[in-house]
Amino acid sequence: MTKRVGKQTIKLENRPRIITTTSIVGPKEGDGPLKDYFDIILEDDLNGKDSFEKAESSMMYKAVQETLKKGNLKEQDIHYLVAGDLLNQTAASNFAARDVDIPFLGLYGACSTMSESLCVASLLIDGDYADNVIAATSSHFSSAERQFRFPLEMGSQRTPTAQWTVTGSGAMLLSKEGNYPYTTYITIGKIKDYGQTDANDMGSAMAPAAVDTLKQHFEDTGRKPEDYDLIATGDLGMLGKKITIELIKEYGYNLSNNYIDCGDEIFDKERQKVQCGGSGCGCSAVVSCGYIYKNMLKGAFKKILLVSTGALMSPTTSLQGESIPGIAHAISIEFGGE
Amino acid sequence: MTKRVGKQTIKLENRPRIITTTSIVGPKEGDGPLKDYFDIILEDDLNGKDSFEKAESSMMYKAVQETLKKGNLKEQDIHYLVAGDLLNQTAASNFAARDVDIPFLGLYGACSTMSESLCVASLLIDGDYADNVIAATSSHFSSAERQFRFPLEMGSQRTPTAQWTVTGSGAMLLSKEGNYPYTTYITIGKIKDYGQTDANDMGSAMAPAAVDTLKQHFEDTGRKPEDYDLIATGDLGMLGKKITIELIKEYGYNLSNNYIDCGDEIFDKERQKVQCGGSGCGCSAVVSCGYIYKNMLKGAFKKILLVSTGALMSPTTSLQGESIPGIAHAISIEFGGE
Repeated sequence: MTKRVGKQTIKLENRPRIITTTSIVGPKEGDGPLKDYFDIILEDDLNGKDSFEKAESSMMYKAVQETLKKGNLKEQDIHYLVAGDLLNQTAASNFAARDVDIPFLGLYGACSTMSESLCVASLLIDGDYADNVIAATSSHFSSAERQFRFPLEMGSQRTPTAQWTVTGSGAMLLSKEGNYPYTTYITIGKIKDYGQTDANDMGSAMAPAAVDTLKQHFEDTGRKPEDYDLIATGDLGMLGKKITIELIKEYGYNLSNNYIDCGDEIFDKERQKVQCGGSGCGCSAVVSCGYIYKNMLKGAFKKILLVSTGALMSPTTSLQGESIPGIAHAISIEFGGE
Repeated sequence: MTKRVGKQTIKLENRPRIITTTSIVGPKEGDGPLKDYFDIILEDDLNGKDSFEKAESSMMYKAVQETLKKGNLKEQDIHYLVAGDLLNQTAASNFAARDVDIPFLGLYGACSTMSESLCVASLLIDGDYADNVIAATSSHFSSAERQFRFPLEMGSQRTPTAQWTVTGSGAMLLSKEGNYPYTTYITIGKIKDYGQTDANDMGSAMAPAAVDTLKQHFEDTGRKPEDYDLIATGDLGMLGKKITIELIKEYGYNLSNNYIDCGDEIFDKERQKVQCGGSGCGCSAVVSCGYIYKNMLKGAFKKILLVSTGALMSPTTSLQGESIPGIAHAISIEFGGE
């Protein structure tokens, strides 16, 4: 009796519960349209540290600690911390995890890491391998800019398709019991690469992966887009979102009614001058931990599909002429719909 | 009825089988003491590619394809590829996975990635979430040197505690049935950092993590070192191995009889001039896929414990004055012992 559904999807029979979440963001994100949903808004994006990398790591540490507090648990109660981020060698996660007494599984899925970590955490709970698991991720505008693009001091111009890496960290606490939103299906994605080479247009690079995973999720589960109150891709941004809506039409699915992209929502693109929107691991993390989760608790959404999307290039592969592989992992979360 | 044993260990009731493995190494590894155990020895460490990074990726791709061939399976039969490597943004794995039609879970655990991926793959099989999973990892001396240390062209001198990153990739195919070596217990490690800051002495940095995970594994399972025919840490090298033997004595465990370190074994340290031995994700990968697995098939080892070890620093964190966090994950493999 397998738990597999269709070609690429797992049904989580035991319904891992998302007991609580924490979202921490920087000042710019805290000035955006979703500001009322975030738990903590930093006044200073260095968070009192002497480097942006240390600041990012401290955000994840804080997100984990706040999540423990909200869940009324101690570090020793958590069987696994499953986390990743964008920094080389996922340094933000490693150094956050160093300071907690929790067994650690490090992931790298670029900006798909929130749904990847949530999928792995769900499997650990569903399979009865753990009582409590925290899934977390982070990103930081200033650590990402200097690692992936140019030092901020250069004042480089941004292209019209550029996205603004979200400064933020999200953490979710998963457990076995209780009346909380629960995860039901996961669809782990395949890597898709349509040959896009512009690292300043990641939305276009990731859209085919989002489409592939969405299509497969619908085929495997027999669900249709309209079965969800909300479908949220990770950080395709304004352009990637449009491409996704167009591409998936070819498979007969209509996403025009209930589909948002976290990168498209998190900033006021005109006023906050972020071109195509937000990006980064932290983007779908804080939008799902903040806006989506809190609306589920209020009953505004009963059934949602989170599809974080990752652009899997590195600066080295781009310099060596490679195109940008994309990946997307889908996980459905439900609450109060029955 | 939980599957947890003690504080930090999982018992794999369904005994995920390791159906087959593939090890690919570069010319230097193929000239070392374990050369007879490797499946493929490259004549040229560029493997016909125009960069070391692409060569590394091509090794992992080849390891996956060879594993499919040996297992008489197609890409479509594999439910997950679980992989990671040392390159920034785990580029070797991402670009290898781009070229296969298999859902992909990316990991980052530095040189602990072989046992991390084997643990995750075992859980996916044990929990009935997949029929077939491939766990893989890779590293490459030349891509690692220029990313973590200095361009090779500089001809930098190596310190006495330095280790030589293994050029190699290992892949394991896990499945549900059959008379093959099987995984029985996994102990996911916590990050340990004793304040070591010398990136040219990673063995010392990782030893405390190895000790912590080993001690916890013994406590949780009630097993003692002598219950194993072989205990193999990942890539502590000659110095890290000595430290591990000393440190674990304080907990009352004697490792002096049946303990090897993959980094200590893979090269002839004198003749091949590798100071403290080998390192890199590929080190414990090719030693476990080659020497250990093949000796299990022959009956030479009936019960082994693989403890890949990772140094979780990045060049940026080292430049920012941070010490080196270490991690180690343990997984026991058994065959024909009953």
